[in-house]
Amino acid sequence: MTLKRRDGPDTSAPPTSPAPTSTDTVVAQRRNFLRRGAAVAAGGVALGASAQTLEIPKSNLAAGRPMEAKAYGTPSRYYTVTRNRTDVLVNRQNFSDWSMTPLQHQHGIVTPNGLFFERHHAGVPDINPDEHRLVLHGMVRQPLVFTMSDLMRYPSVSKFYFLECSGNGLTDWTRAASTTVQQSHGLLSCGQWTGVPLSWLLEEAGVDPKATWMLFEGADGAGHTRSVPMKKALADVLIVYGQNGEMLRPEQGYPLRAFVPGWEGNVSVKWLRRIKVGDAPWNFRSETARYTDPMPDGKWRQFSFEMEAKSVITNPSGGMRMAGPGPVEIQGFAWSGNGTIRAVDVSVDGGRNWQEARLEEPVLDKCLTRFRFNWRWDGSPAQIASRAVDSTGYVQPTVADIAKVRALTGFVQHHNGVFPWSISASGEVKNAIA
Amino acid sequence: MTLKRRDGPDTSAPPTSPAPTSTDTVVAQRRNFLRRGAAVAAGGVALGASAQTLEIPKSNLAAGRPMEAKAYGTPSRYYTVTRNRTDVLVNRQNFSDWSMTPLQHQHGIVTPNGLFFERHHAGVPDINPDEHRLVLHGMVRQPLVFTMSDLMRYPSVSKFYFLECSGNGLTDWTRAASTTVQQSHGLLSCGQWTGVPLSWLLEEAGVDPKATWMLFEGADGAGHTRSVPMKKALADVLIVYGQNGEMLRPEQGYPLRAFVPGWEGNVSVKWLRRIKVGDAPWNFRSETARYTDPMPDGKWRQFSFEMEAKSVITNPSGGMRMAGPGPVEIQGFAWSGNGTIRAVDVSVDGGRNWQEARLEEPVLDKCLTRFRFNWRWDGSPAQIASRAVDSTGYVQPTVADIAKVRALTGFVQHHNGVFPWSISASGEVKNAIA
Repeated sequence: MTLKRRDGPDTSAPPTSPAPTSTDTVVAQRRNFLRRGAAVAAGGVALGASAQTLEIPKSNLAAGRPMEAKAYGTPSRYYTVTRNRTDVLVNRQNFSDWSMTPLQHQHGIVTPNGLFFERHHAGVPDINPDEHRLVLHGMVRQPLVFTMSDLMRYPSVSKFYFLECSGNGLTDWTRAASTTVQQSHGLLSCGQWTGVPLSWLLEEAGVDPKATWMLFEGADGAGHTRSVPMKKALADVLIVYGQNGEMLRPEQGYPLRAFVPGWEGNVSVKWLRRIKVGDAPWNFRSETARYTDPMPDGKWRQFSFEMEAKSVITNPSGGMRMAGPGPVEIQGFAWSGNGTIRAVDVSVDGGRNWQEARLEEPVLDKCLTRFRFNWRWDGSPAQIASRAVDSTGYVQPTVADIAKVRALTGFVQHHNGVFPWSISASGEVKNAIA
Repeated sequence: MTLKRRDGPDTSAPPTSPAPTSTDTVVAQRRNFLRRGAAVAAGGVALGASAQTLEIPKSNLAAGRPMEAKAYGTPSRYYTVTRNRTDVLVNRQNFSDWSMTPLQHQHGIVTPNGLFFERHHAGVPDINPDEHRLVLHGMVRQPLVFTMSDLMRYPSVSKFYFLECSGNGLTDWTRAASTTVQQSHGLLSCGQWTGVPLSWLLEEAGVDPKATWMLFEGADGAGHTRSVPMKKALADVLIVYGQNGEMLRPEQGYPLRAFVPGWEGNVSVKWLRRIKVGDAPWNFRSETARYTDPMPDGKWRQFSFEMEAKSVITNPSGGMRMAGPGPVEIQGFAWSGNGTIRAVDVSVDGGRNWQEARLEEPVLDKCLTRFRFNWRWDGSPAQIASRAVDSTGYVQPTVADIAKVRALTGFVQHHNGVFPWSISASGEVKNAIA
């Protein structure tokens, strides 16, 4: 402590713009400091800022909160970021609704469980895991019933996968309804999921060779139920109880859910209580009246499960204001339900020219990948956007491209179009979809 | 809903042992079902278990909790796992103490922020990020002062790294003091950290070529301060504000901490307020009276920063009871402060024979790696342990190996010895260190 008092900090001015990203910006930054130095001499803002640093912080002068005997920690009271419910297009009793992840505040690729997006049709059930059962029956040699402890005694696997609602972006096809990326893309989260490959349970039950489909049924008030092809179930579907190192959160299906990697979120049925094996889809309401796509010929496409390659810039994004002309790191997420992200291109001129962004490791299959791109904003109006390319060679389309093959009328799902943000001369960032 | 009622589940018995891991165990499992089937006919336990599955769960018959407008989610009320404070060897006022991560309950490699281990010397300070400042001074051309918004405007990087206290395991060198892996190894967690490489800030300040060390000082009541070599600072030290996708938790240094990858946790100074560049270590109390290692010649080793390769079996582990003879997946964690994990060997006969375990992807630098090993317990007493090998070729030593080069007397840090668990004929799993 003596040393701290004897050895006070310097009173120079703080830096006021982002870090140098090349030699010339380093030079620019140094000049900037000299100018600020003059301002300090004249008694400017910088002096006030650095004067505070001469004081020993209050927190150094007293003990803090003692440790608790048993605790499950919570964020700082100064950290007020939340997942937000939307009232757009939905009823008002809040049982069938969605809440969205604040992607503009997410660091890295892991979404904290407390900020994971929600989508449910009859609220969040309160299930005692000791009473929960999973039934596996239908076209199998030996129908089975599992308790949670039965399932948790199996060998397990843990995989990082994104989860996205097929409705993500449905308010922003042809008009800029959303003001932030949380509203336009927040039905998207990513985590590490732990559970048992469904193929192991099917092997144990002994599937009839003629079986081609299965149903997943939830224990929620809506009894949400979907049909899933046997081929996918055998490929990589997991029966999941773990989410980011702990048990599933209630909103994510506690104590058990299906997880269908890379497919629209609603088939990863939560609060999973029953799997039935059959030889045809069941055509539930969620695959006839909902989760279908209108096509140009007036027909509706059923079972469009895959979430195709998509990306979005999260910094800068809607609702932000640029700190001023100068270097800025453009950041965002890219993901594909069909594999890994091979490349992400960024445009800062409304889509005329594209340059390749850096992908941050690890780049994983069916997982969020963070991309970064160094840009120097000159202070004039600009339009920025990103475009993902996945390991199959598929290139993220524009909304105009999608409009050629689908009908963009009504309650349209699967919006993976290129999403632009506009930056005004005053530095305001706005949704530029149109 | 109609379909659910019309289409009730089968009433067969539940499986009662872990999943088949080879053909012969599949057969064994099938026979087991037949035996249970007979028991059902006689009105046994299985009937009770499956009878429950004939009922529609209560949660299916009513709407659940409505969605909140703004929320930061919490675990299920049925999930009661916590990080636990220890009173071993520490004072009683709970300001200088530690709490430990329940590794036996952790799925995957990411530790949930709410279960991240804690170690602090004067409690957890309550810091307003708007008032926080980081001072960078000493042997630099241009001393700097940073606000949080200054730092968060820099380009950033996100990295998965483990964090381990140098004291992890100090109660269990030569006697089995801990009953669970939370107590013996729980000063260990892993997350994705987001921040600014310190080298960028140093470049901006202009470091004197003669500078070889720097100090990190915290804004906590203890004013925790450590000396760190410039070489490491330039290599991979981060100035961190993000933890697993959100801002740092208060116990982890909110709003700002140093993160020194692979080194003992105490040098990753939390609540970071000051960095001073110099040409020699400062010999703070935390590097003379503490965080030093007694050697056989009676001298004490200073600055033993690296956390060398280590591993531990978390399932089965102390305090658990085997479900019974049969297949079981041995699981655990391996990590190294000097690189990636190349291999993990598992012994089930007290260390006489070793077999290679499977490593689960992703296997990342200075990060927890999960290993898995299929074993069939025959019901007789056994002793199990794991042994890590890292990318430098270093092999995790036994405690006996360590005793040859260090003195295991008093408050000894850096226990990375092979850690055995014993399994009794009754299936009880116990700490077997001795």
